[in-house]
Amino acid sequence: MIHYLGLIGIAAFSISGVIAAGKKHMDIFSIVLLGVVTALGGGTLRDIIIDVSPVFWIADLSYLWVSILAAVISFFLIRYVSHVLRLLLYVDAFGLALFTVLATEKTISLGISSPVAVLMGVITGIAGGMIRDVLTGRMPLLLGKEFYATPALLGAIVFTMLGEFFPLHDFNRLYAIAVIFMLRAAAIQWGLYYPRWLTYGSSD
Amino acid sequence: MIHYLGLIGIAAFSISGVIAAGKKHMDIFSIVLLGVVTALGGGTLRDIIIDVSPVFWIADLSYLWVSILAAVISFFLIRYVSHVLRLLLYVDAFGLALFTVLATEKTISLGISSPVAVLMGVITGIAGGMIRDVLTGRMPLLLGKEFYATPALLGAIVFTMLGEFFPLHDFNRLYAIAVIFMLRAAAIQWGLYYPRWLTYGSSD
Amino acid sequence: MIHYLGLIGIAAFSISGVIAAGKKHMDIFSIVLLGVVTALGGGTLRDIIIDVSPVFWIADLSYLWVSILAAVISFFLIRYVSHVLRLLLYVDAFGLALFTVLATEKTISLGISSPVAVLMGVITGIAGGMIRDVLTGRMPLLLGKEFYATPALLGAIVFTMLGEFFPLHDFNRLYAIAVIFMLRAAAIQWGLYYPRWLTYGSSD
Repeated sequence: MIHYLGLIGIAAFSISGVIAAGKKHMDIFSIVLLGVVTALGGGTLRDIIIDVSPVFWIADLSYLWVSILAAVISFFLIRYVSHVLRLLLYVDAFGLALFTVLATEKTISLGISSPVAVLMGVITGIAGGMIRDVLTGRMPLLLGKEFYATPALLGAIVFTMLGEFFPLHDFNRLYAIAVIFMLRAAAIQWGLYYPRWLTYGSSD
Repeated sequence: MIHYLGLIGIAAFSISGVIAAGKKHMDIFSIVLLGVVTALGGGTLRDIIIDVSPVFWIADLSYLWVSILAAVISFFLIRYVSHVLRLLLYVDAFGLALFTVLATEKTISLGISSPVAVLMGVITGIAGGMIRDVLTGRMPLLLGKEFYATPALLGAIVFTMLGEFFPLHDFNRLYAIAVIFMLRAAAIQWGLYYPRWLTYGSSD
Repeated sequence: MIHYLGLIGIAAFSISGVIAAGKKHMDIFSIVLLGVVTALGGGTLRDIIIDVSPVFWIADLSYLWVSILAAVISFFLIRYVSHVLRLLLYVDAFGLALFTVLATEKTISLGISSPVAVLMGVITGIAGGMIRDVLTGRMPLLLGKEFYATPALLGAIVFTMLGEFFPLHDFNRLYAIAVIFMLRAAAIQWGLYYPRWLTYGSSD
């Protein structure tokens, strides 16, 4: 189950890398490579920081193949889809939700304390997309006014607390994923953002 | 002692992350996350490269909490401080000085040779700020004409040489930190830079 | 042999870092540091991901000294060379070819499977240049229409397949390096790029 969820998250982030390439003129292999780096980047950073060896995509090649396959397929299909930027936001939200929860779980399973697990969840969820945005010269999604890191934080906390109270409950993972995705989707749909006193910027 | 110095450096870099967010319109959690990544990024890179496990902020949670606390407090206070950019430079200089020396010391204590320790010191001191600048789309401070990496280099060399001659002297650390901070502060204050034949750029 | 090839690749990438600094006004030490990070960055990422410890330039200091020496020498000579940008492309191509093949070989020698070795080769070859481009605010070479990642991919595959069929052949390495360099040089010289249906970008 966790394995298949992971593969879906990998595919989602890989596709988001392909979509993000849309503003640049890139060749197919560079685009696929960008998709693969976006998909595997967050989890690689997590495994390096919490010192898991080998890294997940070296231990199990299916992650690598799924990220390549998803990138190649979306490369050929993406030009027939309009409203691509909006689609990127939802696909990215799905990857964010999955990766945050899976990374939080993996960190807890190593016996590392909850606050670190929450931070590792958020960083893993965000890192792939940040690498993608830096490499394509886009403004990182993190830097908008909209909720982005916050849903990941809340979801990781919800997952950690559910784990405390219902340690054997199989659906904890799904609840937390749903929390993140729905919060982020609501932010995209209705432009939810923090009240002004909880934001800061020179335009004030 | 080294622990408290480290916490002060963490707080300084975390605050510099919050200040750097000032040109973008970001929400409180994204800003705090930026502060935390800036504060912990350099030391994390150091621990990964010299293969220390667990990473310092997983081994001791106080670094994580201090970086969060410093970011939250400075988020609420920063809007009442004018001349924020100039403040950033000094806060950043303090973090640079502390992290460079502490990373040099940690690398030497693992029995790694001095040239590597000096380079690890400089990279650790600079990395957090570089990550901060890349993520907020600012021009990395490194890339100005002013002294930036040079004070870190000189301080790391001074610390290494003091360690050779006065291995038991407790103040080596403070001397080296003072060297870096004062050189960097002088560079900020009086715009010190290299003579023209030691710089290079297309404006020549 | 592999050691000397590695040193040449280190020097090439270090020089490419110095050349890339040409559009910014930087001091000598910042430029040397940029050269060193460019030269050592790709291999460091490789060693961290495949969990080799210590990292290659800590295990053998000659890499560090060569990168510093190459950067210092090229700093003083580069201003007398015109057509610097074009030179950067060829020097970069040489570093790309060497690092891709050496990283593929190192990964295979650890008993890791071929697809991972190919990806590690490509990522190692590209990473140093990507870090250089991100830190100097240039558009990563990866993001052009020209062949860049593709020669590295083909060379890594050629090297892996040669290794299957001629495991004891000493020239496998040179053949693969030649494949990458010649493909990339051809792309620079004649502006080779993928047919339109294999590229994607908003200008379509």
